[in-house]
Amino acid sequence: MSVRFLALYETPADPEAFERHYREIHIPLARRLPGLRRYVVGRDLAPVRGGAPCYLVAELEWDTMEQLRAAFASPEGRAAADDAARLQELAPVRIMIYTANEA
Amino acid sequence: MSVRFLALYETPADPEAFERHYREIHIPLARRLPGLRRYVVGRDLAPVRGGAPCYLVAELEWDTMEQLRAAFASPEGRAAADDAARLQELAPVRIMIYTANEA
Repeated sequence: MSVRFLALYETPADPEAFERHYREIHIPLARRLPGLRRYVVGRDLAPVRGGAPCYLVAELEWDTMEQLRAAFASPEGRAAADDAARLQELAPVRIMIYTANEA
Repeated sequence: MSVRFLALYETPADPEAFERHYREIHIPLARRLPGLRRYVVGRDLAPVRGGAPCYLVAELEWDTMEQLRAAFASPEGRAAADDAARLQELAPVRIMIYTANEA
């Protein structure tokens, strides 16, 4: 079991500006989140069903929901969330949190 | 590095019928996929940004893209894909494949 923070980015109007911001500003901020166990990013997604795929998928993982909540309540968490708001101006995004259980 | 198959289900018209089909038919079929390393499901997702969250998120993981492609080309893969088409009648879904790289 783990707790996941899943961000689904749609194609940005200006992919170069988005990539620059994501790589140079957002990743370094998010990597500082306390207790972060894993942070993986997927690009060049291939569609399988239901239309066009997302442009970029980011998945951040913590051991427990308490740790995730503590991470986002920390100064590092507030900085990352503030930057996510700026990033949303560059690409539509849908973000959600869930507990991942083995099927 | 791993290869992920990500299915994003939106709220079904009949959640009970969807859950029954997903649990009793789809999970057993998908668990038979050759080389499947991990299969996690998230329910009761909490929204963070960008509107309502998905209803259910399923993530299946393989070591390599070749293994994933072999899995879906197998008889077990064709059975799971056929069932996914039926499941899509119960809930809108968007499915995509990506290579997950550490951020």
